Amino acid sequence: MKPNPYFAALQKSYLFIDIARRVSAFTEANPNADVIRLGIGDVTRPLAAPVVAALEAASREMGSADTFRGYGPDTGYPFLKEAVRGYYAKRGVRLDADEIFISDGCKSDCGNIGELFAADNTVLIPNPVYPVYVDSNLMAGRPIVYAEATRENGFLPLPDRGVKADIIYICSPNNPTGAAYTQHQLAQWVDYARGNDAVILFDAAYECFVQTPDVPHSIYEVPGAEDCAIELCSLSKTAGFTGVRCGYTVIPKALVRGAEQLNALWARRQGTKFNEVSYIIQRGAEAVFTEAGMAACMENVAYYKKNTAVLSAALAQAGIWHSGGQNSPYIWMQCPGGMKSWDFFDMLLDKAHVVGTPGAGFGQNGEGFFRLTGFGNAARTAEAAERLVKLLG
Amino acid sequence: MKPNPYFAALQKSYLFIDIARRVSAFTEANPNADVIRLGIGDVTRPLAAPVVAALEAASREMGSADTFRGYGPDTGYPFLKEAVRGYYAKRGVRLDADEIFISDGCKSDCGNIGELFAADNTVLIPNPVYPVYVDSNLMAGRPIVYAEATRENGFLPLPDRGVKADIIYICSPNNPTGAAYTQHQLAQWVDYARGNDAVILFDAAYECFVQTPDVPHSIYEVPGAEDCAIELCSLSKTAGFTGVRCGYTVIPKALVRGAEQLNALWARRQGTKFNEVSYIIQRGAEAVFTEAGMAACMENVAYYKKNTAVLSAALAQAGIWHSGGQNSPYIWMQCPGGMKSWDFFDMLLDKAHVVGTPGAGFGQNGEGFFRLTGFGNAARTAEAAERLVKLLG
Repeated sequence: MKPNPYFAALQKSYLFIDIARRVSAFTEANPNADVIRLGIGDVTRPLAAPVVAALEAASREMGSADTFRGYGPDTGYPFLKEAVRGYYAKRGVRLDADEIFISDGCKSDCGNIGELFAADNTVLIPNPVYPVYVDSNLMAGRPIVYAEATRENGFLPLPDRGVKADIIYICSPNNPTGAAYTQHQLAQWVDYARGNDAVILFDAAYECFVQTPDVPHSIYEVPGAEDCAIELCSLSKTAGFTGVRCGYTVIPKALVRGAEQLNALWARRQGTKFNEVSYIIQRGAEAVFTEAGMAACMENVAYYKKNTAVLSAALAQAGIWHSGGQNSPYIWMQCPGGMKSWDFFDMLLDKAHVVGTPGAGFGQNGEGFFRLTGFGNAARTAEAAERLVKLLG
Repeated sequence: MKPNPYFAALQKSYLFIDIARRVSAFTEANPNADVIRLGIGDVTRPLAAPVVAALEAASREMGSADTFRGYGPDTGYPFLKEAVRGYYAKRGVRLDADEIFISDGCKSDCGNIGELFAADNTVLIPNPVYPVYVDSNLMAGRPIVYAEATRENGFLPLPDRGVKADIIYICSPNNPTGAAYTQHQLAQWVDYARGNDAVILFDAAYECFVQTPDVPHSIYEVPGAEDCAIELCSLSKTAGFTGVRCGYTVIPKALVRGAEQLNALWARRQGTKFNEVSYIIQRGAEAVFTEAGMAACMENVAYYKKNTAVLSAALAQAGIWHSGGQNSPYIWMQCPGGMKSWDFFDMLLDKAHVVGTPGAGFGQNGEGFFRLTGFGNAARTAEAAERLVKLLG
């Protein structure tokens, strides 16, 4: 048996494992240090009460013979698809229920969606970006080209007509930079994709943080996207589902390449290699989309946004260049005095006992930058902000 | 963009979708027919009370700031890995916690595990068998050879030294035939794999039905399996988790090919393309492995076993050759009078209003055979048994 040869192209460990290792070494050496973690992009607010009630009720249903449910539909229960459909409809995006695939989260679908494509397609990935896009394509042996995201272009690269790509990853609002494309900018990507017979994989996992009016929540707000884009989304950040696991992927039936409707291929893929998300979890997700559920979730989003404002104000006070925060839970800062990302990581941990994420972990262009998240506790984030000012001001 | 060319090799629809379509056409045409469904292998008994209590408690934890949990470990929480470890230890199989990967079920892992292997490995798959093995390898473009399972060999093919395979799927107790390998027979497969540098993918999803003393629950009961076998298991049948979704895959660290430890490759794969199973569901799964939880689950297994005994007795009375049932929830019967599988499906539905699964749907060698399951309601199954005797006796 020959193992998959492409794993050798991967870096041996994942960014967040490296961070965990350094933090754990530090806390072992400094057991009394009061460490504030603004590193991994994980939520901290509890689930909304209507969601918890739905999870409990569904758990009880499963314990009674007359309400027990076994296998559900591979691509999700109609009740949840309808809820997602209604969510899109509110901003004018009309989807059919069978264009929506309920998933266990954006990471799985971002990783697995590559199975729709032949191995010799060229993949275009922004740099820096969420590491899953690069790693999952390396594992499949696909050639990768990068779109350079830099301070100069606001970390929002636009299409280069000289580059030929077949598959394009876009994450907007972006992880890690917090930058978000406007409608006009996204339309340029849609144009490029349509002109090149390419497919856009649009990661909308942070859409709930969008507040700028001309920044779309969904790529389908851009005319023409329905025949060139797949959208991947998640309740991880919208509803605090990082540990609950539920998301959704949209593949319009208008998206056809060669003789293949990608929607039908994905249905076949999921039917073969996935069973539906737990019924219990789907009921919890349904509750997110109720009026009360969404209102409670948006209170949490507002809570996190206050945190990013506090961090942003502290960096401004210290005279540190930074962006993000506006439409995103992430602040993307330049490391002080031309420091490298991991050097700043060590200094910040050592001197201020604050954990962040080195930009270099997201790609070459992240070198010299650093990510802070607004997902922490408000009082702790305020304390971290004070320490930042003291260290850098 | 070029779509994955290998999807074209797949049959357009999945067996159970075909069945659903025929049943739905029948019930539309015969709205008053009292149809008994013994087709799809789905459980019907509600979850055990300790499992429901654990699911509810975990849901409540997620609603409180001090007990909320975000991202968990990609490969599962230590509490659940310890529970699985203890389950294996009871039959003398010693595993390290990091040899256990918690999954959302056997189907996902059976489908995705192929990513560990290069595309040009030859895959050996029994015929007939659970369709996921064939379809997921067709999607990856891997060459497939078949091991012929026939009435003559008790639907338990043994290794053919003349055939060179790199990856071997074994499902025991088998879906659909209900046949289960003895320790001595499995040892021949382990020998073959070790002699050919091959890897066995052992699907143990039905292990909880094993009652014959010399039939192993786990392939690791066979000496030497730890350096040539991966085991995939699920709580779907053990604990009625078909709609709850939780399983586990075991990859011993001793399983090395070339320079690669397959355990490390899978950890990297799951770290990149999967997030952990929902915390709530993992707590429910943990409760399965408690004394009270397992006792309640085994009551359900006994309930299903009684159903298979009733079906088996009816077929014996009608003089129909059949096997399975002993270590499995499935009865595998020969269609009467040399009928083909789908013809018998139609006749059984039409004349007796009973739904089963055509053997031909599991592969060529299933033609002329038919699968009945013990997963139904006891009274309904007894009614179906009476109808079988009436129709066939």
